[in-house]
Amino acid sequence: MIKVIILGAGNVAFHLTTNLLKNIEVKLVQVYNRDITKIQYLKNQTSITNNLTDLKEADIYIISIPDNAISNFSSKLELKNKLVVHTSGCTAMNELQSNSNKGVFYLVQSFSKERKVDFSKIPICIEAETDKDFKLLKKLAKSISNNNYSINSKQRESLHIAAVFVNNFVNHLYYIGNQICEENKISFEILKPLILETANKITSLDPINAQTGPAMRNDTKTIEKHTTKLTVNQQEIYTLLTKSITKTYGKKL
Amino acid sequence: MIKVIILGAGNVAFHLTTNLLKNIEVKLVQVYNRDITKIQYLKNQTSITNNLTDLKEADIYIISIPDNAISNFSSKLELKNKLVVHTSGCTAMNELQSNSNKGVFYLVQSFSKERKVDFSKIPICIEAETDKDFKLLKKLAKSISNNNYSINSKQRESLHIAAVFVNNFVNHLYYIGNQICEENKISFEILKPLILETANKITSLDPINAQTGPAMRNDTKTIEKHTTKLTVNQQEIYTLLTKSITKTYGKKL
Repeated sequence: MIKVIILGAGNVAFHLTTNLLKNIEVKLVQVYNRDITKIQYLKNQTSITNNLTDLKEADIYIISIPDNAISNFSSKLELKNKLVVHTSGCTAMNELQSNSNKGVFYLVQSFSKERKVDFSKIPICIEAETDKDFKLLKKLAKSISNNNYSINSKQRESLHIAAVFVNNFVNHLYYIGNQICEENKISFEILKPLILETANKITSLDPINAQTGPAMRNDTKTIEKHTTKLTVNQQEIYTLLTKSITKTYGKKL
Repeated sequence: MIKVIILGAGNVAFHLTTNLLKNIEVKLVQVYNRDITKIQYLKNQTSITNNLTDLKEADIYIISIPDNAISNFSSKLELKNKLVVHTSGCTAMNELQSNSNKGVFYLVQSFSKERKVDFSKIPICIEAETDKDFKLLKKLAKSISNNNYSINSKQRESLHIAAVFVNNFVNHLYYIGNQICEENKISFEILKPLILETANKITSLDPINAQTGPAMRNDTKTIEKHTTKLTVNQQEIYTLLTKSITKTYGKKL
């Protein structure tokens, strides 16, 4: 049994806690959070604390708090010869300031408290300073999901940027699509099957081969017609992405 | 039985032909295509022709050819008192130039020949000049899918623009994500579950509430770090979409 302590109660920490409580290869020894009211619901299932000096013994301490708080928070931990990891996509392993062994346990998924997550398919990117710690993290990763990857801090930073494009920015384009529908009294429901198919397609086709639409076809008549119908902000985005697509496919607008 | 003739052999025409051949409420009387070799595979299942003067009798003639060819092509049809429709998202009904009754039968989905399509979930947007024709198109739509909508030409134009954002532009962001992964020797497989979850999320959450990420959090430290790692083209898109997200959520960068 791998003994784990989770520090934090945000979306990632919440789902990871739920998973590890049911994980037969893991003993979730304790959950820490600064605001104890957020972890009160766990008091019958594991030890809870809001006091760093009360931390119990464990094999892995998982810090799952806002990215910009990791460095400072980790400097307060006194966990010599223990493995302390964070779950951040955009924080280098060496930003951990504890005098303990360092590692990273990055779950590549977008978590919301309201949505259940199928952990068995979540890619887990791990990094550690030593082989021994790497193996321990790999064991933990395997107990959670079938997909695990060795990703160093430099790669993880790029991976996180790529995730911003395919997750945050994509969702913003959904928002703009929704906005255009609302402005024209069209049900956004009409676009949902298209949104799902667009995502599903890339499981069998490379994005470069899945591209369709007026920009790809260099259909300047349609492109011009479209841009006149948009708000300034929508138009800027339409024009820049159209330019990028035509550039990608070697056509000139 | 609704008697239908399909004119065209592109992606939409191909999948619609496949569907209508199996549809028990429809008789696919004939398929026309300028280049007959593309529809030779149908010769044992229906009548095929590449000659417009050989068109048979039918209730609905469905033109499914490139958008910019519809107007000119339809002017060559001599089908008085027949219903002629197109399947284009970005072409007004009145761009049909035939002396017949006009209508539109727009399937809101992205079709590739290689991918099977579940027609039962595809939204079909219909428009017609007369009530009688509208009812006929609705009957055809219902025989194909559970989702049908009455959408006029003005709305359809906006719907098509929204589709460009949530389909064409989203796929281009997948491409950029893939590109960043390749440049850094990271498997794009790591991002696929995130891509699928991002799309699935909006079936239960409005895009405005599903937004996460550094732009949404106004995390300027991460945003600055990210932009230094990108190519000029990637950086332009990153900056514009970040600006648009922070504007949406009322924060200033």
